[in-house]
Amino acid sequence: MSPFSIHPQLRADCHLLGRFPRSHLLLHKNALIPWFILVPETDLTNLFELAPEPRRAVIEESASIARFITEELAFPRINFAAIGNLVPQLHLHLIGRRAGDPCWPLTVWGNLLENLSYPAERIKEWTAMLEKKCGLKPEAQGQDH
Amino acid sequence: MSPFSIHPQLRADCHLLGRFPRSHLLLHKNALIPWFILVPETDLTNLFELAPEPRRAVIEESASIARFITEELAFPRINFAAIGNLVPQLHLHLIGRRAGDPCWPLTVWGNLLENLSYPAERIKEWTAMLEKKCGLKPEAQGQDH
Repeated sequence: MSPFSIHPQLRADCHLLGRFPRSHLLLHKNALIPWFILVPETDLTNLFELAPEPRRAVIEESASIARFITEELAFPRINFAAIGNLVPQLHLHLIGRRAGDPCWPLTVWGNLLENLSYPAERIKEWTAMLEKKCGLKPEAQGQDH
Repeated sequence: MSPFSIHPQLRADCHLLGRFPRSHLLLHKNALIPWFILVPETDLTNLFELAPEPRRAVIEESASIARFITEELAFPRINFAAIGNLVPQLHLHLIGRRAGDPCWPLTVWGNLLENLSYPAERIKEWTAMLEKKCGLKPEAQGQDH
C-alpha cells in the first residue's frame, strides 16, 4: 500500500493543524466561519464502508472537534458532513455556525462567497488549544501530507 | 418528558417510512434524488451532544441506510450530514448521489430546484425492501409522529 497522503485540493484549501490517532486535522483557509476538516487515514471513500470500530473512532475524533467548536469557540451549532462530490478522498466537515454568520442559514458549500485569511497567530493559538483540549499531535517531522 | 414528535417541517417535506430502535426513517418527497432522513428520538439537537453509545447506535442505523442506497439503489456516493440550520431537531441526511444527477456536483441543500413526486408503489416497494434488508419496523398503530 502506498503511503497515505492528503488530497492536493484539501492541502490547497486548508491549513494542516496536526493529527489524531485515526485522522489528520485541517482548517479551511477561509476565516469567515470556523471550518475544520478531518481526513481519516484510509483509502476508502465512504464513511459507511469503514468497519464499525474505525468508524466509531473517527466519529469520536469528530466529537472532540465539535466540542472544541461549541465550548472554546462558542459557536452554538455544528454542521457535520461527509460529502466528497468534488474531492473523493474521505473527509469530514465540522463547521461552527450561528444565526447571522456570513452564510446563515445556508450551508457553506458553494455559499461562502467572501474570503478572509487567518492571522498566523490565530492558527498557532487554536493549534495549541487543540493540543491541550483534544489531544491533537503535531505531524511527524518531515512528513509531507 | 413530553412524548417525542417529529418536527412539522420534516413531516411536511417527507414521507414517514417507519422506525429503527433509535430513530424514525423519513424519505424526502422530492424523488429526483434518493434523500433519506433519520430522526433520532432525542431532545438534543447536536449529534455530538449524544453520549457515545446512543451516538454509535444512530451512526450504525445510518450505516444501514447508506448500504441500502449503495447496494439496492445502486448510487455510488453517499452525502451524509447533520446540519439543522433551518430545522433545529436533530436529523441526519443520507443522500444517494452519482455524477450527472440533477444537482451534481452541488449539495442538495438549496440546489435541488426541480421537483418530482414518488409513485405510491415506489414508496411501498422501498419500505418493504428496508424492512427486509435493514430491519425497519412500521410505526406503532395510531402513533402520529
